[in-house]
Amino acid sequence: MNEIVLAADLGGTNLRMAAVDSDGKVLYRTGIETPRSENHKPIVASLIQLAIACREATKKDASVTAFGVAVPAIINTCGKIFNAPNLPELNGLEFSSAIASKIGVQVIVENDATAAAIGENWMGASRDFGSSICVTLGTGVGGGIVIDGKPLRGIDGTAGEIGHICVEPDGVKCGCGSFGCLEQYSSASAITRMAVELRDRYPKSLLRNKTGLGPLDIFNAGKSGDALAIEVFRRVGYYLGIAFAGLVNVLNPEVIVIGGGASAGWELFIDEVLYEIRKRAFKQPAERVRVVRAELGDDAGILGAARLALGK
Amino acid sequence: MNEIVLAADLGGTNLRMAAVDSDGKVLYRTGIETPRSENHKPIVASLIQLAIACREATKKDASVTAFGVAVPAIINTCGKIFNAPNLPELNGLEFSSAIASKIGVQVIVENDATAAAIGENWMGASRDFGSSICVTLGTGVGGGIVIDGKPLRGIDGTAGEIGHICVEPDGVKCGCGSFGCLEQYSSASAITRMAVELRDRYPKSLLRNKTGLGPLDIFNAGKSGDALAIEVFRRVGYYLGIAFAGLVNVLNPEVIVIGGGASAGWELFIDEVLYEIRKRAFKQPAERVRVVRAELGDDAGILGAARLALGK
Repeated sequence: MNEIVLAADLGGTNLRMAAVDSDGKVLYRTGIETPRSENHKPIVASLIQLAIACREATKKDASVTAFGVAVPAIINTCGKIFNAPNLPELNGLEFSSAIASKIGVQVIVENDATAAAIGENWMGASRDFGSSICVTLGTGVGGGIVIDGKPLRGIDGTAGEIGHICVEPDGVKCGCGSFGCLEQYSSASAITRMAVELRDRYPKSLLRNKTGLGPLDIFNAGKSGDALAIEVFRRVGYYLGIAFAGLVNVLNPEVIVIGGGASAGWELFIDEVLYEIRKRAFKQPAERVRVVRAELGDDAGILGAARLALGK
Repeated sequence: MNEIVLAADLGGTNLRMAAVDSDGKVLYRTGIETPRSENHKPIVASLIQLAIACREATKKDASVTAFGVAVPAIINTCGKIFNAPNLPELNGLEFSSAIASKIGVQVIVENDATAAAIGENWMGASRDFGSSICVTLGTGVGGGIVIDGKPLRGIDGTAGEIGHICVEPDGVKCGCGSFGCLEQYSSASAITRMAVELRDRYPKSLLRNKTGLGPLDIFNAGKSGDALAIEVFRRVGYYLGIAFAGLVNVLNPEVIVIGGGASAGWELFIDEVLYEIRKRAFKQPAERVRVVRAELGDDAGILGAARLALGK
């Protein structure tokens, strides 16, 4: 009988929970909207409630051995939440011990982008590769790094912040306080901002007078040949390529995985990404690295958390 | 009785050799100018000759167990030289086996910048730290990364090329083929180039009409308050800071060590480096990281090679 673990992906919007076996098969899944409050109690209570529901649903199969949770936060090595910008009610919480005491199994908590990198490395686009970088193009740009099969966490657990590599020294101000971060040119929010900034230059664009413009509108316009939308995604690719070329020179990875909602624009940015990598990175590591689309979608974080819970 | 190893640092100009004990003590040292030729034979013959001399000199103390060599090259995991831009006669050489067959002990070969990082991590500025980055500001900008006490080599051994992180997307063309690499703003050659580029703006500079300008002239002028020289070193620090902020966000290291000839300008660039790191990197890892001067000078590579030979 396979080992079974619980795994959760706690996001700013959704809380997803699953029971996963040691082959990475999701046996049962459930979820709710993330309950928001001024304190951490609703989130902790929901995590425990859903975890118990998952465990009940799989009880006939095996006993649950551990619980992995992916959280959008900087987490220290003892499972304490250091900083969760999108779930600030969790800041300072001794997360692992708060939940473990109610569930009765070990709780492993991991940064969500690192968990996604582990998930893709286990069951997704970077499986069979020892060293991989996983970049998530969402509202922001998240990153996770796996080296020799192990997540790179850094001394404080803050490593992997690929979205905050500087790609324009005097560029757009970033929410992190810096200027010209990759996130300001390659996230879903950046796609919308760049389209708005550029549209006066494109009087014939389909997007010229559109209100409530979003990344999907821009992607669809690009697919139908709209020059403004094509330029926006070219810039996405250009800046991704600059950041990736640096990572290729510094880390010499086998594969870079691109996921997240804005990776839907793949066909509009990937050529520029590959061009910049070839132009800017050393020949051997540039030829080595593969750049591929993520395969696990929303399950990447859950499967990464499951893998950690399995102690693999 | 301590274990003794041989260690060499093979540079484009000098070949240094030493016998080193397991405490990192140099028991004997020798060296010559690197013999250049169209083929690898003079270098290999010299390495063997000096190694034998070193071994003879220490024979009374203990038997030599291994030989570590730092080489300015990309080296694959089996000790073959993949690419040595400054010693092209070594390209393609099965370096480890060519030398091991003549010396009768195991030969470990390592990239020189990575060896320097290992050396500083063993006996120098980053000792007692598990994760460190070592940057060498010489003719070029070299880099080596140690994570959890182990050198980061990447899948092909090309990792650590910190000098080729892009810090200006449309910047100065680099010898590597890219544009705006850190090396073009923070190496000894870059210091001279920037001074020449900027001197029309500084009619009162001491360096205004100087011929044969070099980094040491610029450093000395800066120490005496020359505004041109001060601006050149400010730029060195600005671009180092941009690259380091990215490394801090991505790797969350404990310490960054700066060595190499141009690190002599430390007092003229370090404030700007620290300012850019604090401005651009996430708060926690920026507060964590220490930026320190290298301590081992020319011995960093030899001691790193020795450490590898000791199998530590």
